[in-house]
Amino acid sequence: MTSFDTITPLLEKQAIELPSWAFGNSGTRFKVFTTPGTPRTPEEKIADAAKVHEFTALAPKVALHIPWDLVDDFSALRTYAEDHGVALGTINSNTFQDEDYKFGSLTHSNPVIRQKAIDHHFACIDVMHATGSQDLKIWLADGSNYPGQQDIRGRQDRLADSLQQIYARLGEEQRLVLEYKFFEPAFYHTDVPDWGTSYAQVAQLGDQALVCLDTGHHAPGTNIEFIVAQLLRLGKLGSFDFNSRFYADDDLIVGAADPFQLFRILYEVVRGGGLDDDSPVAFMLDQCHNVEDKIPGQIRSVLNVQEMTARALLVDRDALTTAQEAGDVLGANGILMDAFYTDVRGPLAAWRESRGLPADPFGAYLASGYQQQIAEERVGGTQASWGA
Amino acid sequence: MTSFDTITPLLEKQAIELPSWAFGNSGTRFKVFTTPGTPRTPEEKIADAAKVHEFTALAPKVALHIPWDLVDDFSALRTYAEDHGVALGTINSNTFQDEDYKFGSLTHSNPVIRQKAIDHHFACIDVMHATGSQDLKIWLADGSNYPGQQDIRGRQDRLADSLQQIYARLGEEQRLVLEYKFFEPAFYHTDVPDWGTSYAQVAQLGDQALVCLDTGHHAPGTNIEFIVAQLLRLGKLGSFDFNSRFYADDDLIVGAADPFQLFRILYEVVRGGGLDDDSPVAFMLDQCHNVEDKIPGQIRSVLNVQEMTARALLVDRDALTTAQEAGDVLGANGILMDAFYTDVRGPLAAWRESRGLPADPFGAYLASGYQQQIAEERVGGTQASWGA
Amino acid sequence: MTSFDTITPLLEKQAIELPSWAFGNSGTRFKVFTTPGTPRTPEEKIADAAKVHEFTALAPKVALHIPWDLVDDFSALRTYAEDHGVALGTINSNTFQDEDYKFGSLTHSNPVIRQKAIDHHFACIDVMHATGSQDLKIWLADGSNYPGQQDIRGRQDRLADSLQQIYARLGEEQRLVLEYKFFEPAFYHTDVPDWGTSYAQVAQLGDQALVCLDTGHHAPGTNIEFIVAQLLRLGKLGSFDFNSRFYADDDLIVGAADPFQLFRILYEVVRGGGLDDDSPVAFMLDQCHNVEDKIPGQIRSVLNVQEMTARALLVDRDALTTAQEAGDVLGANGILMDAFYTDVRGPLAAWRESRGLPADPFGAYLASGYQQQIAEERVGGTQASWGA
Amino acid sequence: MTSFDTITPLLEKQAIELPSWAFGNSGTRFKVFTTPGTPRTPEEKIADAAKVHEFTALAPKVALHIPWDLVDDFSALRTYAEDHGVALGTINSNTFQDEDYKFGSLTHSNPVIRQKAIDHHFACIDVMHATGSQDLKIWLADGSNYPGQQDIRGRQDRLADSLQQIYARLGEEQRLVLEYKFFEPAFYHTDVPDWGTSYAQVAQLGDQALVCLDTGHHAPGTNIEFIVAQLLRLGKLGSFDFNSRFYADDDLIVGAADPFQLFRILYEVVRGGGLDDDSPVAFMLDQCHNVEDKIPGQIRSVLNVQEMTARALLVDRDALTTAQEAGDVLGANGILMDAFYTDVRGPLAAWRESRGLPADPFGAYLASGYQQQIAEERVGGTQASWGA
Repeated sequence: MTSFDTITPLLEKQAIELPSWAFGNSGTRFKVFTTPGTPRTPEEKIADAAKVHEFTALAPKVALHIPWDLVDDFSALRTYAEDHGVALGTINSNTFQDEDYKFGSLTHSNPVIRQKAIDHHFACIDVMHATGSQDLKIWLADGSNYPGQQDIRGRQDRLADSLQQIYARLGEEQRLVLEYKFFEPAFYHTDVPDWGTSYAQVAQLGDQALVCLDTGHHAPGTNIEFIVAQLLRLGKLGSFDFNSRFYADDDLIVGAADPFQLFRILYEVVRGGGLDDDSPVAFMLDQCHNVEDKIPGQIRSVLNVQEMTARALLVDRDALTTAQEAGDVLGANGILMDAFYTDVRGPLAAWRESRGLPADPFGAYLASGYQQQIAEERVGGTQASWGA
Repeated sequence: MTSFDTITPLLEKQAIELPSWAFGNSGTRFKVFTTPGTPRTPEEKIADAAKVHEFTALAPKVALHIPWDLVDDFSALRTYAEDHGVALGTINSNTFQDEDYKFGSLTHSNPVIRQKAIDHHFACIDVMHATGSQDLKIWLADGSNYPGQQDIRGRQDRLADSLQQIYARLGEEQRLVLEYKFFEPAFYHTDVPDWGTSYAQVAQLGDQALVCLDTGHHAPGTNIEFIVAQLLRLGKLGSFDFNSRFYADDDLIVGAADPFQLFRILYEVVRGGGLDDDSPVAFMLDQCHNVEDKIPGQIRSVLNVQEMTARALLVDRDALTTAQEAGDVLGANGILMDAFYTDVRGPLAAWRESRGLPADPFGAYLASGYQQQIAEERVGGTQASWGA
Repeated sequence: MTSFDTITPLLEKQAIELPSWAFGNSGTRFKVFTTPGTPRTPEEKIADAAKVHEFTALAPKVALHIPWDLVDDFSALRTYAEDHGVALGTINSNTFQDEDYKFGSLTHSNPVIRQKAIDHHFACIDVMHATGSQDLKIWLADGSNYPGQQDIRGRQDRLADSLQQIYARLGEEQRLVLEYKFFEPAFYHTDVPDWGTSYAQVAQLGDQALVCLDTGHHAPGTNIEFIVAQLLRLGKLGSFDFNSRFYADDDLIVGAADPFQLFRILYEVVRGGGLDDDSPVAFMLDQCHNVEDKIPGQIRSVLNVQEMTARALLVDRDALTTAQEAGDVLGANGILMDAFYTDVRGPLAAWRESRGLPADPFGAYLASGYQQQIAEERVGGTQASWGA
Repeated sequence: MTSFDTITPLLEKQAIELPSWAFGNSGTRFKVFTTPGTPRTPEEKIADAAKVHEFTALAPKVALHIPWDLVDDFSALRTYAEDHGVALGTINSNTFQDEDYKFGSLTHSNPVIRQKAIDHHFACIDVMHATGSQDLKIWLADGSNYPGQQDIRGRQDRLADSLQQIYARLGEEQRLVLEYKFFEPAFYHTDVPDWGTSYAQVAQLGDQALVCLDTGHHAPGTNIEFIVAQLLRLGKLGSFDFNSRFYADDDLIVGAADPFQLFRILYEVVRGGGLDDDSPVAFMLDQCHNVEDKIPGQIRSVLNVQEMTARALLVDRDALTTAQEAGDVLGANGILMDAFYTDVRGPLAAWRESRGLPADPFGAYLASGYQQQIAEERVGGTQASWGA
C-alpha cells in the first residue's frame, strides 16, 4: 500500500466548498426543526462556515444561494468573507420558490416567465462578478407531476435555448455547471433527470459548461463512480455536490449512509485525474442538517471526505493494475479493500497537529464554546432557512 | 366477462372517505404553492369535501387530522358536516409537528415525551366519541436519520407499550389502524416501515387493531396487491390510504401513475372479500394536490377508484380460475386484461344519470361555478395547510 | 380525440421485428423449462416467426443472433425466410458465452481477446451483407462483480477504440446500434449501463451509430419515455428492444407489466417523429417466454404494441398543447388518459378484417392447429435455447 | 470503545455454515463459467468446505442441497464429513428444477403435484435424521410471471396447509426455517416475498418454525438491520443466508457490496442477543462464485463476517445509549462509526496465531497448494453445479 507520507501533499491541497444554506434551518415537508444559534443573515452564515475552515483547513470557500443570500453590496460581503478567512464561491440560482415557476422556469412554455428565469441567471452572473465566483450552478426544479401535464420534448428544446442565452453571458473565467436530479420536487418527469441529459445539454454549449454531480440525485442502485469515471473521461465533470442517502435525495452527511461508496467515488476521482492540478473538478457539500447540529455536521462532513480521500490515495495502483490484468478477481478486490479498511484517523490527526491544526477538529470545535456563544448572541430576528 | 348490470349493486355501495387536508395547500420541502379559494377553516374543508360527494355520490365521509382540524366543539362540527350531507370519518393523529417529537413520539426514550404522545391519542379518542368516528389512524414519523442515532430495538418495544395503552382506551365500536411507511421524513430507519411490522404490532393488540395500507408507502417494485391479499387473508386489512407514485411517497392522484396497479389491487380486494358486506376494509384517499386544483383532483380520484373497481368486478372469475388451474398462462392473463382494457366510462356515465347524478361529475363540477365562488368569497384569513 | 380512421394509415406501416431466440427455450439461472414443438434450427425459428406475421401483418422481419443462428449459407437462409414471407433483420452479436470473455470482450485489457471480440463483429458484418440486414446490434455483458476487479475507466477507453474499428467496417447502408443495460450478468459495474454512456460512445462514431433502447434495462423508477424523447431530439434513437418488467430485466411480454408506461413511451415516439417516414427508429421485441407458449407470446406482444400505438395516435394533440400551455394540469392529463382508456380492440379487429386478416389473431392462431402440428413433427434433435 | 480482549471469547464461538453448492459452478442465465478443480461429488464439496474450516476455524458445518447432494448413504457421508473435521448442517429442499413445478410446488393448485412437493420435504426430514441436521430450510421459487396467471390468495392458503403437514413431521430437535425472497425466478408475484409473509406463516406453525433472512432478498433500499432487530424481538429469527448485492439477488461475497450494511446488521444481532448462548440464530453463507475462485471466495466471506462481528462487538454500547437518550445525533453516530472504522485486521491476525491458526488464512490457503492439487487431481467426471 502507498505510504501515508506520500499522500499528504495532495491532501494539503484539498478544498471542499461549503453551502451557506447548510447553516440555516432545513427539513422536510412535514416539519422544519429549529436550533438555537442559527444564522439570521448571510454574514452569520459565512461566519459559521469560516469556523469550519478554521478547525479543519478544508473549507476555504462558501457557496451562495440567490435570493437566499441576497445582499445590497456583494463586494462588501466578499470583504467580510475574506476578513473571516474564506472566499465566496459558487453562485446557486433559484427558480423554484416563486409562484411564477409553478410549471417551470428555463423550460416554461410562456416566454415571459422563461425570460424572467433567464434574467435571474443574468443577475446571478452579475453577482459572480462582484464576488469573484467562478461557477454558476444551475439546478432546476422544472418538471411535471402527471403524464400529459407538460410537453417533455418541447421543454427540452426550450431548456437548450435558455441555457444558450445564459452561457453567452458568462465571463471568460466563469463557468456554468448544470446539475441533474432523478426526481423531486417534480414527481412524474424532471427536465434534467440524469447525467446523460446534463451532458448532452452542456456539450452543446461549449467548454465553459460542465456537469454537476450531486451524489444524492440518482436512481436506486446507480453506480455513481462509473458516472464519475465517465464524466472525467469526457472532460465534463465540473463539480460535486456531496451528501449521502439511503432512499431518495435525503441530503444526509456525506459518507454517512454508505462510506464504501464514497471511497469508490473518490478512488475514481483519483484514477481519472480529478485531484490533478489542472483538474476542472470543484468539490462542494450540499446537505440538510435536519436533526443534527449544523456546524458540527459540516465539520464531520469535510472530515469524512478527507478521510476517504486519504484511503483512496492509499490504494496501491500498480499492484491493482497487475491483479486486474491478470484476472485475479479476489486479489484485485483485496487491494482496494485493504486501503478502505485502513484506519487513517490516527495518521491524519498527527498530520493535522504538525500543521498547527487540532488533531480532532470535531472535538475541538465542541470544546471551543462557539456553539454556546452563537446560541446566546443570536437572539431575535428570523432564522435563515430555505425560504430566506 | 361479467355484465355491467350485475356489478352496479356493488358499485352503489362504494364509499371512499376524503381527507380534509387534501383541500388545504400542500407541497414539497421546496415550495408550497397556493390556490385561490383554499379553505381557511375545518368547516370550509368539509364544505369542499361535501361538493365531491354531491357530484359523485362516492364520498360520504370526511377524515379529520388533529390538530389541523381542531375545533372547540366537535359535536357542532359533526352537525355542520351532516347538514352538508357528509359524516365525519377517521381521526388522524399527528405527532410530527411539535419540537418535542424531533426524536420520536410513541417510541421516544424520554417517558415524558412518550406520555405526551400517548395522551394526544387519548385526546383523539375523545374527539372520536364526539364525531362518531370509527377509526383512529396512527401514522408515525418516528425514525432516525443516522445509523446509531437511536436504538431501533428499544424503540420497537416502547412502541408496543404505547400502542397497548392507546388500544386499551378504545371504545367498543372503535378501531385502531396502524399505518406503515417505507421512509420519510426519517431517512435511515423508520419505526413502522413495512406491513410486517404493522401486522406484528397490531396482532399483539387484539381484534380492534388493524393495518392501514397506504399505496404510496412501499419500497420500489413492491407487489402491493400481494400485501392486500395477504392482509385480507389474515383478517387484518383495516383501511386503505389511496394515492399513487412514480418514485417515493409522491401522493399523486390515485390511479394516475399506474392505473394497472390500481386495477390489480382492487381485483385482490374483490377476490379477498374486501367489498363484502362484512368486510373490515375502509377506503380512503390520502393525497397532496401540489400543482393541480384540489376539489377537481379529489373528484378525479374517487372516479378513478370507481372506474377501476368496475373493471375489477368485470373480471370473469370462473373462467379465470379454470385458466389458472389449467396452467394456461396467456389465457389467464388475457382474461384479466380483458376486463382492464374494457372502457367502463360510458356504462358508468349512463348508470350515474339513471341515479340522478351528472354523467360526467368532473365536467359538471367545473361548470357549476363553485370554484369561482369560493375563489371570490374566501378572501383574507390564512389558507389551511399541513401547518394548520 | 382523433378519429380511428385517420390513424390506420400509420398503423398499416407499423413493423415490429421478432427475435429468433424468442422461439427457442429460455429461462432463469434456476431452470429452463421446455415446451413441445420448440424449434431445433434457425429455419424452424424463422418458420415460427413467419406465423406471427401471417396472423398479424405486424412482424415482417426476424432478427438473428450469432452464433445461435449460425448457418453455413446465410444467402440460403435469406431465401428461406423470403419464401416464408419475412425478411432477415438485425444481426445481434454475442460475446458473452465464451470462456475467453469471462472478464470482458470489447473492453478486455488483453489485446488478443479484445481482437477476437472485434473480429466477431467483423464476421457479423459479413453476415449482414449476406442477409441484407441493416443493423448490427451490440449488447455487451462486459462488466465486473467486485469493486476493484477491473479498471472502469480503462475499459471505457478500450470500448471506444473497439467500436471505432467495428464502425469503420460498416457498409454505407449499415448501422451500428449500441444497447445499454443497467446490470446483469455483471453485478457491480457494467460497461454500457445507461443511455448516457451509449449516447456518448455512438456520438463519437458518426451518423451510422445510434442507441438501442431496451425497455427492461433501466434503474427502478426511470422515466423511460423521457429518454425516448431525448434520444429522438438528439437524432440518436436507433432502435427499441421491447419487453416489460416488474423488477429487473424480467423480459416479460411488452405491455404486460405496465401498459400505461408502454402507452407513454409510444406517445413520445409519436410526438418526436419516431413513426414518421424518415424516422431512424427500428422497433423490435426482445423477450423471454419462460413459462408461456412462445408463438402466442409473440403474437400477444405485437398486438400489445399495435393497440398501444393506436391509443397513442388517438391523443388529441392540439387540445393537449392548449391545456399544457394553459397550465391546466388535470385537463392535460385527462386528454392523455382519455386516449389511454379508449378500448381500441373493437376498431382494430374490424380494421384487420377489412384487410383480410383475422379479427383476433391470437385466437385464430390457437385455432389454426399449427402449435399441435409442430409439437408432433419436431421430435428428436436439440431444442434451441440461449446456448445454441 | 470496548477492548479487543473482551470480545475474543465471543469470536471464538462464532460458527458460519458453508453451503455445499458454493463449491460447485454457478452463474447467470447467460453463462456458467467453469474452473479447474471444481468438485464432482458431494464428498469433494465437503472436502473443500473442510479446507475453509481448517484455515479459519470459522466454518464447522456444511449445508446440503437435496437433490444436488443426494447420496445413497447419508450416514456414510456424515462420517466422511466428521473425518474431515466438519459436521453436516442445514438440509435445503429443492422444488424448482422439476418440470412438474413449473407453476408451483407447495402452493400448486394440482393436489398431485403439491403432494409430490410435500413428500420431497418428508424425504429431506429423513435425510436430516441420518445426517443429524437441525434445520430444514425451505426456499420456494413459487410464483408467477403475469398478473392473473395464478390465484395469489389461494396459493397462500395452500402454502399454509403444506407447511403444516411438513411441520408435523419434524422431530423434536428439528426446525423448519422459511426463507423469503423479493423476486426471481418469478417476475410478477412470489409466494413468500417478504419477511412479513414468512413470519405470518411460521407464526401459525409453532415454536420450531422460524424465519430465514437472506441478506440479498429484499427490495431496493430496505433497511435489513431493522428486520433483524424485529425478528429477534419476535423470537423468530432462525437463520441468516449471508451474501451481498448491488442490484438484485446478486449472491456476491458477504460484505463485498456494502460492508457498512453488514456491520449494522451484525450490530443489531449483538444488540438483540443473537450471539448469546441461547440464541436461535444460525449463521450461514449462500453465495455464487461466478467469476472468482470458490474456496478463496468462501474464506474471504467467513473472514468478512468475522471482521465485522469484531467491529460490532467493539461498539461502546453504554456510551451509545447515553448519547442516544440525550438526542446527541452526531455523538451517537460517531460512537458507532468509531467501531466501524477501527481496523481489526491486525488484532485478529495476532489472535488467530495465538490459537494456532494462520494469521492470514486467505494467504495461507493460496500458499498451501491445495488449489493446484485439486485442479490436477479432479480430471474427468462432471463438475458439480446447480443442475447436479
